[in-house]
Amino acid sequence: MAGNSYGTLFKITTFGESHGEALGGIIDGCPPGISLNLEAIQYEMIRRKPGQSAIVTQRKEPDEVQFLSGIFEGKTTGTPIGFIIPNTNQKSGDYSHIKDAFRPSHADFTYEKKYGIRDYRGGGRSSARETASRVVAGAIAKQMLSEIKINAFVSSVGNIFIDKPYQDLDFSKTESNPVRCPDEATAAKMEELIRSIRKEGDTVGGTITCVIQNVPVGLGEPVFDKLHAELGKAMLSINAVKGFEFGSGFCGATMRGSEHNDLFNNDGTTKSNLSGGIQGGISNGMDIYFRVAFKPVATIMQKQSTIDKDGNSIDLEGKGRHDPCVVPRAVPIVEAMAAIVLADFYLLQKTYK
Amino acid sequence: MAGNSYGTLFKITTFGESHGEALGGIIDGCPPGISLNLEAIQYEMIRRKPGQSAIVTQRKEPDEVQFLSGIFEGKTTGTPIGFIIPNTNQKSGDYSHIKDAFRPSHADFTYEKKYGIRDYRGGGRSSARETASRVVAGAIAKQMLSEIKINAFVSSVGNIFIDKPYQDLDFSKTESNPVRCPDEATAAKMEELIRSIRKEGDTVGGTITCVIQNVPVGLGEPVFDKLHAELGKAMLSINAVKGFEFGSGFCGATMRGSEHNDLFNNDGTTKSNLSGGIQGGISNGMDIYFRVAFKPVATIMQKQSTIDKDGNSIDLEGKGRHDPCVVPRAVPIVEAMAAIVLADFYLLQKTYK
Amino acid sequence: MAGNSYGTLFKITTFGESHGEALGGIIDGCPPGISLNLEAIQYEMIRRKPGQSAIVTQRKEPDEVQFLSGIFEGKTTGTPIGFIIPNTNQKSGDYSHIKDAFRPSHADFTYEKKYGIRDYRGGGRSSARETASRVVAGAIAKQMLSEIKINAFVSSVGNIFIDKPYQDLDFSKTESNPVRCPDEATAAKMEELIRSIRKEGDTVGGTITCVIQNVPVGLGEPVFDKLHAELGKAMLSINAVKGFEFGSGFCGATMRGSEHNDLFNNDGTTKSNLSGGIQGGISNGMDIYFRVAFKPVATIMQKQSTIDKDGNSIDLEGKGRHDPCVVPRAVPIVEAMAAIVLADFYLLQKTYK
Amino acid sequence: MAGNSYGTLFKITTFGESHGEALGGIIDGCPPGISLNLEAIQYEMIRRKPGQSAIVTQRKEPDEVQFLSGIFEGKTTGTPIGFIIPNTNQKSGDYSHIKDAFRPSHADFTYEKKYGIRDYRGGGRSSARETASRVVAGAIAKQMLSEIKINAFVSSVGNIFIDKPYQDLDFSKTESNPVRCPDEATAAKMEELIRSIRKEGDTVGGTITCVIQNVPVGLGEPVFDKLHAELGKAMLSINAVKGFEFGSGFCGATMRGSEHNDLFNNDGTTKSNLSGGIQGGISNGMDIYFRVAFKPVATIMQKQSTIDKDGNSIDLEGKGRHDPCVVPRAVPIVEAMAAIVLADFYLLQKTYK
Repeated sequence: MAGNSYGTLFKITTFGESHGEALGGIIDGCPPGISLNLEAIQYEMIRRKPGQSAIVTQRKEPDEVQFLSGIFEGKTTGTPIGFIIPNTNQKSGDYSHIKDAFRPSHADFTYEKKYGIRDYRGGGRSSARETASRVVAGAIAKQMLSEIKINAFVSSVGNIFIDKPYQDLDFSKTESNPVRCPDEATAAKMEELIRSIRKEGDTVGGTITCVIQNVPVGLGEPVFDKLHAELGKAMLSINAVKGFEFGSGFCGATMRGSEHNDLFNNDGTTKSNLSGGIQGGISNGMDIYFRVAFKPVATIMQKQSTIDKDGNSIDLEGKGRHDPCVVPRAVPIVEAMAAIVLADFYLLQKTYK
Repeated sequence: MAGNSYGTLFKITTFGESHGEALGGIIDGCPPGISLNLEAIQYEMIRRKPGQSAIVTQRKEPDEVQFLSGIFEGKTTGTPIGFIIPNTNQKSGDYSHIKDAFRPSHADFTYEKKYGIRDYRGGGRSSARETASRVVAGAIAKQMLSEIKINAFVSSVGNIFIDKPYQDLDFSKTESNPVRCPDEATAAKMEELIRSIRKEGDTVGGTITCVIQNVPVGLGEPVFDKLHAELGKAMLSINAVKGFEFGSGFCGATMRGSEHNDLFNNDGTTKSNLSGGIQGGISNGMDIYFRVAFKPVATIMQKQSTIDKDGNSIDLEGKGRHDPCVVPRAVPIVEAMAAIVLADFYLLQKTYK
Repeated sequence: MAGNSYGTLFKITTFGESHGEALGGIIDGCPPGISLNLEAIQYEMIRRKPGQSAIVTQRKEPDEVQFLSGIFEGKTTGTPIGFIIPNTNQKSGDYSHIKDAFRPSHADFTYEKKYGIRDYRGGGRSSARETASRVVAGAIAKQMLSEIKINAFVSSVGNIFIDKPYQDLDFSKTESNPVRCPDEATAAKMEELIRSIRKEGDTVGGTITCVIQNVPVGLGEPVFDKLHAELGKAMLSINAVKGFEFGSGFCGATMRGSEHNDLFNNDGTTKSNLSGGIQGGISNGMDIYFRVAFKPVATIMQKQSTIDKDGNSIDLEGKGRHDPCVVPRAVPIVEAMAAIVLADFYLLQKTYK
Repeated sequence: MAGNSYGTLFKITTFGESHGEALGGIIDGCPPGISLNLEAIQYEMIRRKPGQSAIVTQRKEPDEVQFLSGIFEGKTTGTPIGFIIPNTNQKSGDYSHIKDAFRPSHADFTYEKKYGIRDYRGGGRSSARETASRVVAGAIAKQMLSEIKINAFVSSVGNIFIDKPYQDLDFSKTESNPVRCPDEATAAKMEELIRSIRKEGDTVGGTITCVIQNVPVGLGEPVFDKLHAELGKAMLSINAVKGFEFGSGFCGATMRGSEHNDLFNNDGTTKSNLSGGIQGGISNGMDIYFRVAFKPVATIMQKQSTIDKDGNSIDLEGKGRHDPCVVPRAVPIVEAMAAIVLADFYLLQKTYK
């Protein structure tokens, strides 16, 4: 398996399966001399971890990150930051019923065909548990980029959407409710929907919007490594993501040039921002904003017909502790990946000066 | 500037600006012994080039690719394939009026701030002319992957959408009309819309859908380098792209797990295909399909107010020969980037056996 | 700090300092389905570890590798193999006298200037303790390449050289003496020299020769990534290495073409092998052999004059437990790096078929 | 074929065979705003090109580099610099006698086995003609690093060595004789030796020493990407190179720590410089110096017995225009590769500040 690294100058490499002894990773390229607030890192871990509220999975994973290198007397030393997150709460028994089954819309089938072997106790590397390591790296990237403000939030669950522009939202409210939707009235409706869907043993999809403010002009490369192309890859690499759009997005594809162009103010800012803060793949200093679509979780608590390894039809019913809706817990992951992408371009930009 | 390469094992590196002497590139990693049909490569170049019909820009660029290495007696030798595409039709005079201007929603401003220097005669590396080199590499990737069928087409222009599933379309019709929409009735409406918008000196956005068939099971890596994440990055790296979705896409984010899961047939195929041919980042052998959103071209033939380098307000009117709608010409570029991504994963997959 | 990864398809990334909590690494790209002999891996760790004999450092480091992922039921799964090696025997007190000192011919000065911060308790990442992680990766690479035989041995210590061609040596004798020299008479002299130098509080350099047999034809790439160029980089990346030569090496630079050319036998083997098994950067199936020069260990048990951070002259005397001669312990490291390089090219070569 | 790129931030990718239409390359990552002296670049090409004197091959290759992008009004724009070097003087007839032959100590055999196809008209990518592209990139790197002084020279031919330390040489004399040896008395002896060997239809090896001065402290990474490891790979990637040593090199392996350690002066410089300007993989500001061993050219003008593709014995006699000794022409190549390596680390170092 390749592709367990992300980034060029600020680079994260992760390892670990949902049911092994530990997850972990190595952050290479973090500059020296950055004072790290370890509590802020752990706070991001807590935001991601299961069991935080009644509407997410009740698995208990303490998700305590242990740093093994690269930090000395509270500061980064410039050497690689190795860390592990022990898996303390694996219940392998929960998964024995799926040892030979291919769960619908999971990666069981593709893993089996690709590798010819798989750790059937969980999703292996396709488990969203892998994202815990990304959150560690993202939390460090955030501290490195302390001027830049990254705020993600749940913008829709099923057919319930926030109906306000992000400028009218108060991001400080995002953490005030279990859905992580900063519009409290909408949050309440979303929570109700998730509860009712959970009762039915079903799951539901949603979207996350991310807004990045105070970005320096000049991040991103104009050809293949456009800032939004890299953000898109980063988001699409998160489990269950089906789509990515930035600025005007898919809606922009229905518009005319005369209404879509962002006219300049004399100071170089723009009157509108359909570009989403990126022109020609390079940040222009305006807010960057994008939206990420998540499918409903594939594991449902209803009986489904599926097949086993030999192609025999079997019945399968979800067991264990799964999320009825993944988007609340994915908010810190979206922020983490955004921070990692920005950190990489931020370091690269230094080489032009 | 970094980021002028794409791919790891099948790798394309490009160079060249819209107004330099030539564009070109190097394809590294193409296996030896592949018989190349050079006419098929030139055919893709013709599909992309300007001046093909009344609804695209009337610039004349012969876009003849000259191969300089890597091919011997009609076959690839395994050595890097170097090629150039001379720029024969630059009219630098066309651009002198924008030497000091920042065109709205172009990369002029971000280039100036990022590099402190730019070739004002054109878009530099942010010109879509760069994609000619991608089409060369994509055409070779297509021949390397001759079993795999890649068909892109225009699925919407402005608010005119094809209202059929792709399974009901005849891809052999895509090239029969200048819009590259395989549904002829819709194509006629799209063409009419583009003509009327052109008359107004305006431009319009649109979407391209791409369908990839006969994909072997197992392409893609489960974590950061998911097949759809790489396809997403590749598409978002094309000029004017604002969004990417695959399978159920943004629509999937409104659905429930019980309706979204793709149930298996006994042979391992699935009854539905909301997954879009990819599960856990790995191809499952079903059709891969995705949709790409393009904004309207920023250069319009109407007067716009903008600023110059010093922040003074100036009026600007588009001159020269520009596309009123970019999607027809972007169809071969979407196919090319898809082919490049698949070629890379195809070679990588060989290392697991 | 960048550069903590080695390899493209078989890739090792390491972390950890000599005085942190643990060392470790991630091996990405190891193919699935390889049965791993964990004892054989631990055996390589024991070969490298300190305290094995009277002529090496008497530090006690159990160096037990703990695998955290990527192995299931005794086989590789194709997922990244994460591992740690706890540091159980740090004696930070040993190093307090050098907190502000720049030890001669160590990396203290360059670290301080490069990073502006350093973990003064040890050599940080420049400590040879980092190579423990390489040995883990190399041991796995060896098992993946079970057909290929990699044998390194000490070929000189100070001015005592083996005076036989490697073909006359019995590699099974290498481990029979603490010097790791397969020629027992020479080994005895080397051991005596090291003992006497140790008594003087001094250190001595040496060379390691490595012979690789049963290599498939075709490994290596002809331009920048020549097989010997990559082997050279891998060896030069080992602590204390000052030189690398393969085949005829520096001696070949004094020869004539008529005596240096390796003439072919009719089966494609060559009568002589001054090429060292590599022609044009590609393995030709003959034995690969190369020689690596190690400088004497910089930490000596004699008083030296040096400077502190502020440029003041100070006296310094080596304390602690250091090797009088590094080459015996470097033998498994040379083999490990050779295995890693070969594993990478071995996987790459599969993409051409 | 992979491996046609070198560098991460300052990256050169090359293409082209000795007998194709052109060689060329792309330099990606060169910062914007560097004033380029194109004559200085062409001067380096002339140093490398054949036919400069009676002791090198008499092939005529004008080796005029044509820049196609990345330079505007005399300055780099930060965009990729594409260039070609037309092959104007191929005499394919010269090579027809070797179409089916495997020349001893050439890459014919390994190419055939690796790729199953080869352009028999020349050495393909294994021809030293490829290095012309490296010289272009190196010449630009030199201009980017204008403070750093890189001087390579021939330090031995056969058994004739310069017997002075480099500090006693006047590098301005290097170009004053065809051997490129700055010690004129030794140069005369070397030239005589080459002439006499040429008359015999034979060839001879030699070494090049390279001295790099005014290097900033801090270049290089402490683990895998040590400055000397990367320099070693770069040198070993040059055709015909068999060995690399820096600082005390192989001689250092015979020394004791007490005599090898470089003691500090109070200003951080060192009294001796056996380290060769690099400690722990990082430049310390002292002179960097290294030595590179080149084997004798494999093509000799004497009859040799060899085999053809089918394993039949055949007689082969060198034809055409070949160098009796490659080291004089390799001097600018060594400098070019050193400059490329330094440019890459120089840009990387900016990311730590």
